[in-house]
Amino acid sequence: MSLFRRVGIIARLDKPQILDTVKKLMEYLQEKDIAPVLEDQLAAMMPGIKVDSSVLKELGDHCDMVMVVGGDGSFLGAARAICNYDIPVLGINRGTLGFLTDISPHNLQEELDPIFGGEYHEEKRFMIEAKIKRQNRPSGEGIALNDLVLHPGKSARMIRFDLFIDDQFVMNQKSDGLIVATPTGSTAYALSAGGPIMLPKLDALVLVPMHPHTLSNRPIVIDANARIRIVVCESNLTYPSVSCDGQLNITAAPGDEIHITKKAGSIRLIHPKNHDFYNVCRDKLGWQTGYRP
Amino acid sequence: MSLFRRVGIIARLDKPQILDTVKKLMEYLQEKDIAPVLEDQLAAMMPGIKVDSSVLKELGDHCDMVMVVGGDGSFLGAARAICNYDIPVLGINRGTLGFLTDISPHNLQEELDPIFGGEYHEEKRFMIEAKIKRQNRPSGEGIALNDLVLHPGKSARMIRFDLFIDDQFVMNQKSDGLIVATPTGSTAYALSAGGPIMLPKLDALVLVPMHPHTLSNRPIVIDANARIRIVVCESNLTYPSVSCDGQLNITAAPGDEIHITKKAGSIRLIHPKNHDFYNVCRDKLGWQTGYRP
Amino acid sequence: MSLFRRVGIIARLDKPQILDTVKKLMEYLQEKDIAPVLEDQLAAMMPGIKVDSSVLKELGDHCDMVMVVGGDGSFLGAARAICNYDIPVLGINRGTLGFLTDISPHNLQEELDPIFGGEYHEEKRFMIEAKIKRQNRPSGEGIALNDLVLHPGKSARMIRFDLFIDDQFVMNQKSDGLIVATPTGSTAYALSAGGPIMLPKLDALVLVPMHPHTLSNRPIVIDANARIRIVVCESNLTYPSVSCDGQLNITAAPGDEIHITKKAGSIRLIHPKNHDFYNVCRDKLGWQTGYRP
Amino acid sequence: MSLFRRVGIIARLDKPQILDTVKKLMEYLQEKDIAPVLEDQLAAMMPGIKVDSSVLKELGDHCDMVMVVGGDGSFLGAARAICNYDIPVLGINRGTLGFLTDISPHNLQEELDPIFGGEYHEEKRFMIEAKIKRQNRPSGEGIALNDLVLHPGKSARMIRFDLFIDDQFVMNQKSDGLIVATPTGSTAYALSAGGPIMLPKLDALVLVPMHPHTLSNRPIVIDANARIRIVVCESNLTYPSVSCDGQLNITAAPGDEIHITKKAGSIRLIHPKNHDFYNVCRDKLGWQTGYRP
Repeated sequence: MSLFRRVGIIARLDKPQILDTVKKLMEYLQEKDIAPVLEDQLAAMMPGIKVDSSVLKELGDHCDMVMVVGGDGSFLGAARAICNYDIPVLGINRGTLGFLTDISPHNLQEELDPIFGGEYHEEKRFMIEAKIKRQNRPSGEGIALNDLVLHPGKSARMIRFDLFIDDQFVMNQKSDGLIVATPTGSTAYALSAGGPIMLPKLDALVLVPMHPHTLSNRPIVIDANARIRIVVCESNLTYPSVSCDGQLNITAAPGDEIHITKKAGSIRLIHPKNHDFYNVCRDKLGWQTGYRP
Repeated sequence: MSLFRRVGIIARLDKPQILDTVKKLMEYLQEKDIAPVLEDQLAAMMPGIKVDSSVLKELGDHCDMVMVVGGDGSFLGAARAICNYDIPVLGINRGTLGFLTDISPHNLQEELDPIFGGEYHEEKRFMIEAKIKRQNRPSGEGIALNDLVLHPGKSARMIRFDLFIDDQFVMNQKSDGLIVATPTGSTAYALSAGGPIMLPKLDALVLVPMHPHTLSNRPIVIDANARIRIVVCESNLTYPSVSCDGQLNITAAPGDEIHITKKAGSIRLIHPKNHDFYNVCRDKLGWQTGYRP
Repeated sequence: MSLFRRVGIIARLDKPQILDTVKKLMEYLQEKDIAPVLEDQLAAMMPGIKVDSSVLKELGDHCDMVMVVGGDGSFLGAARAICNYDIPVLGINRGTLGFLTDISPHNLQEELDPIFGGEYHEEKRFMIEAKIKRQNRPSGEGIALNDLVLHPGKSARMIRFDLFIDDQFVMNQKSDGLIVATPTGSTAYALSAGGPIMLPKLDALVLVPMHPHTLSNRPIVIDANARIRIVVCESNLTYPSVSCDGQLNITAAPGDEIHITKKAGSIRLIHPKNHDFYNVCRDKLGWQTGYRP
Repeated sequence: MSLFRRVGIIARLDKPQILDTVKKLMEYLQEKDIAPVLEDQLAAMMPGIKVDSSVLKELGDHCDMVMVVGGDGSFLGAARAICNYDIPVLGINRGTLGFLTDISPHNLQEELDPIFGGEYHEEKRFMIEAKIKRQNRPSGEGIALNDLVLHPGKSARMIRFDLFIDDQFVMNQKSDGLIVATPTGSTAYALSAGGPIMLPKLDALVLVPMHPHTLSNRPIVIDANARIRIVVCESNLTYPSVSCDGQLNITAAPGDEIHITKKAGSIRLIHPKNHDFYNVCRDKLGWQTGYRP
């Protein structure tokens, strides 16, 4: 008997072939006597089908595991939605390996059987949250699994801000913005801005300046439990934004403080037993793959 | 009464003005009834002076604190020599702030009084060690506070090697070598090769490829307790070296395995109470210094 | 007698101390019997003063030389305004050396006397222009002395585009955009994005990808006379912009073609005889300055 | 009838399969009544075969075209040997595209027929030369098609040197050395050190600092006709080397001057008509390849 009784399904909605994978998943689950619970919008796209469904943010109330079908981007959205529930998540990709979506849709049964038999590897991935304060009052907040990015928003001007770590002044920076990335996010946007790869289990964050005016401003790796404070200088003429996993934006104003900290709890990411982080790196980053002893 | 009764002194020997600082230090200590103990070679350069002395590697047996006069480079040499003793170390610079040498020779009394009165901040800095194995037998070893660097040695050819972390294969790399740096070393050589700054208390290492043939090979930040293994490929035509803090070299041969791990114990680095790591960064790396709230 | 009979003056308007410099400049010119011609808005800020004035874009009709008081940014705006006139431009900085503004306001007479006596160095700096075509019809254009930058505009999403040089396909790129910089612009924004410094007289352009998704996308240096064509892919969900010297924006739409070419003619930049480009680099970029033979 | 009557053949000697390609080439030439002329050492490896041969450095006297079989490295060696002869060179690779070796050994006839019929594209590639002066007297020299690299030689210490361009002082640099690369070399070692790609026909050089101590030292692109002078500071404790295309080394001493200039003449590189530089970049650097209009 499976460990899991009710499995939520979240999927990227704009690719028709993903619906096929969802259908196969549902058949697979039903054969195993596991109840699928579709995310609302997904359910709406499969009109004939009679299964339970739920709005995204309550999905965690109705299942004991969640599957995400799509790319790493879909996984990020799902993670933010279910992060307050203590349930594991499994990523099904669209044919090519992702950092967060290991399972190939091409051999679902073969890959899922061991997992539902309890043969899997669970990894905790922490998230971060941003709280914006305007004149000492909360004015916005957001969470992210990959990264929180301070960027110029609707203008293309540089931003000037002061950075503090654990209330110590670090620097005044003039740049296109700052990426605060988790280890999970270190292989995503932060990498293209010159940040290091951080192994997934590391309890650290990296702060990557974007096109800094001062050439010696470099990525800084800090303890994940540190408190980051960014003060948007009053001299900025435009309103910067804080982007959460590149999917949601919160607007900040000159003078605002952005507080970034580790979020309590964590995402329980499920991998097949043979999952190999370095293999994903070699594959997706184009490292040489051969091992010649 | 001072916390410390006997203070070892190590100094860079090739700069005459450093001897003046050493003399002032000795006077300072003697006024406080603290016994200076000079490192052997330093003692030899001050013939008229009658104080205790000791060979470098036994200096820790004869004192309960060590002072290093010189630059960060002098500190590195001293750290390797006293790392097996559980005594604190204080760095006196040569007029400009160092990452490891905070105390200015220009106002010794003012800066040292609080420290000998017990008003200081002690920071632990871990070291790393390399053990080279040839056909499974030890063939060389070394330790470092900043970095262990695999480099081409006497040739200028690229090196080909396999990298493993905790026995998992990471990649086969063709490059000018690999820098394995501690947080302490992250602001030194590793930084000039594109590595991130890591805050001193972080329990992590960074692996920075030097001019890698594959452009997507990037710095990787790992847990400091991980076991790194580098296998020098048999196909290399020349003998690479492992450099310890840029000061000592161990030769490796094609086929050798280089094992790098965190060293047990750590260096007890003493700072004045007002020490500010970010201030050293701003000063030495040329970041903008102003804080405009 | 001076070479120049009528000298246009353009100034940054938001800093009161700049008006003082303008007044000193005017006195200097009038003592030499040279007629100052103020840019319109500048004239409006100096109500009591009776001298000729002109709207910015016609200023070149009324003078045989132009002075720009402000930073490099002010110079860029002036350059775009007068680039179709064949008259030299001289930059007066606000106290710190600029790449385009050599003359210090602190010793105007000393620095200007040789210049008005004909002792100066004239350097030609070329500009580039962008023409946007929508369904083969012109839909926008702009010129730049430093750089034309394709960026995401009001969103913070990556852009996907195809790049062609002289009608040859170069690559499909997914990135935060592309900087096309002249040698003049190579020490500005392009440098913070990882581009090389190009000596001012080089007849070349550099194309610098911004945070490219593919890590091996690197800056490309091409002949300044090449024709660059960027095709914004239809798949983009948002409207990117082309920014001219970071000061003006032209909106592009998915499917648009952006044609970038060298502009006919060039800016005639005047320097004091002792101008030294490398000295500006050393000063502004923080290179070590000493020359120890 | 072929344009070429006698074709020199140079090959990498350490790979047996290359000899097969050489044999096929010889058969191909003989069928066309063209006389192959083997480089001496290559001839020695093919004992039964009776064709003309010549020592490498005189090969150009005996033929009106040269073919190089091997990788880009083999081509570099051949280029240095024949650069004083005005004859074209064609590169045959070992199965994978090279920047200098376009012709695949797998369909020789198909690729060579048009070339010997006069259907080819000839590209000039310039070389650079280094002359070392010790106390104003020549003490060594070398030439390169890709790059001249100042590096620490047998030690792993940083080098301190002064850089001059056209007799103007540029900077004092402390680094692992300096790469001076041609456009041809810009896709080789210089690229892995952070240099830009320069289009092959550009008349420029790039100076790429290796791990510079000052983080704002960046690659500099200069006119290929500029005179570069590097003065090795007297304070260096070790003897650096200048490496020519990574294949030959010339030793320099503290105090030596290294003069680098464009070499007179150039290499005549032959490509098939359909050669596409960007395609080689996409293939070898792993850029995305699709063109989606």
